[in-house]
Amino acid sequence: MTQTSLSPAPSSAPTAPEEATRVAVSTVIFTLRRDPLDDQTVVLPLVRRTRDPHEGLWALPGGWLNPTESLDAAASRTLAETTGIAPSYLEQLYAFGAVDRSPARVVSIVYWALVRPDEIPNDVVENVSWFDAAELPRLAFDHNEIVEYALWRLRNKVGYSRIAHGLLADAFTLAELREVYESILGRRLDPANFRRQVENSGTLIPTDRFRTGSHRPARLYRYNQDVELADRGPLVVRH
Amino acid sequence: MTQTSLSPAPSSAPTAPEEATRVAVSTVIFTLRRDPLDDQTVVLPLVRRTRDPHEGLWALPGGWLNPTESLDAAASRTLAETTGIAPSYLEQLYAFGAVDRSPARVVSIVYWALVRPDEIPNDVVENVSWFDAAELPRLAFDHNEIVEYALWRLRNKVGYSRIAHGLLADAFTLAELREVYESILGRRLDPANFRRQVENSGTLIPTDRFRTGSHRPARLYRYNQDVELADRGPLVVRH
Repeated sequence: MTQTSLSPAPSSAPTAPEEATRVAVSTVIFTLRRDPLDDQTVVLPLVRRTRDPHEGLWALPGGWLNPTESLDAAASRTLAETTGIAPSYLEQLYAFGAVDRSPARVVSIVYWALVRPDEIPNDVVENVSWFDAAELPRLAFDHNEIVEYALWRLRNKVGYSRIAHGLLADAFTLAELREVYESILGRRLDPANFRRQVENSGTLIPTDRFRTGSHRPARLYRYNQDVELADRGPLVVRH
Repeated sequence: MTQTSLSPAPSSAPTAPEEATRVAVSTVIFTLRRDPLDDQTVVLPLVRRTRDPHEGLWALPGGWLNPTESLDAAASRTLAETTGIAPSYLEQLYAFGAVDRSPARVVSIVYWALVRPDEIPNDVVENVSWFDAAELPRLAFDHNEIVEYALWRLRNKVGYSRIAHGLLADAFTLAELREVYESILGRRLDPANFRRQVENSGTLIPTDRFRTGSHRPARLYRYNQDVELADRGPLVVRH
């Protein structure tokens, strides 16, 4: 290796096109959708590819990094351009860079977000469709692997952070919160145990409002904003 | 934008050199070092830059991604080339891609690892020095920000994972484990509370061996390998 430093030599020749590594961004957007049996499932939007490689296969929304925009901005822009979705916050998930993941050498910086169903535009967007995250067809590139990793992170994250917040309204009942956890984890949770655990966690504040309807009134809770948000950390999103 | 797809148009012209985005890797290697007052501090190796930009400043070990190697392999190779350190496992930390972080456009995929002091070669390597993570000089590029983020992740991670494992021998006393936590968190922990918490966590297994010395014998523990490792997830490291 002649270059082990971060600085290109001033006289470095232009990289030959066949050797250039290109940087792309892709986005995994999870939300919950109620199925005909009234169960909630985790779904995500995919975009049908209209050119090779992998023409006709479904892929994560994404595109090339523009040289004058940050990674965060590229993720937001390409998501909006392909799907019309504009979440208030995207989190960086992982950089995928296997040599054989694309015919050309492409490093994809993958972002993800959880959005509430009401944050998704109702417009039908050409070549975009929503898929059950647990029952995906074969996707383009390594996108099955990427979604699998995002689901794994999602299931891990519900245990130690307020990630379910992104899928709920500002005020919610404990049953609604439990249903979100059940959808993500793919299993039922004992209501009494669940209530005890979240009440002991200090992350929820009871409000004096109640959800009324066909069942007995259920108290509404909100997340305690004073608890330090461990989710985002010191990185400021710069666009 | 003319390209919103992951596939370059077959006839796309070579990217002009001044517009090309380059991909680099950098590595944050944390270990503990005992200071003259017998306290342990978190330290990391830095490499002095021998060329512009930022000639003379200290920077994280790293280098350019080779087009024929994975991100993981590039991180391992450049770390070994610059510092001689070869940890058994590097974890991807974050991709840094602010437009102004380097005179040229560089996206850096940053890896990190925790290594035990005995895993570090004793050789003196030219232009490499170890620094207290809490008292860094001004580093090249955005590397102060990168180290700050890595420290934040480290402090968060001790709470829910077995990250301290990387800094300990296979068998260790509870006092040794507590000292690692104290070094990372930068504060003292109550020994009785700490013992109760780790014993309740189910992650430690008592052995029938004891550390003997100037104090009364202390039982040695090891990590329970049956507890699912939430640290690494489904991503297989492919070199």
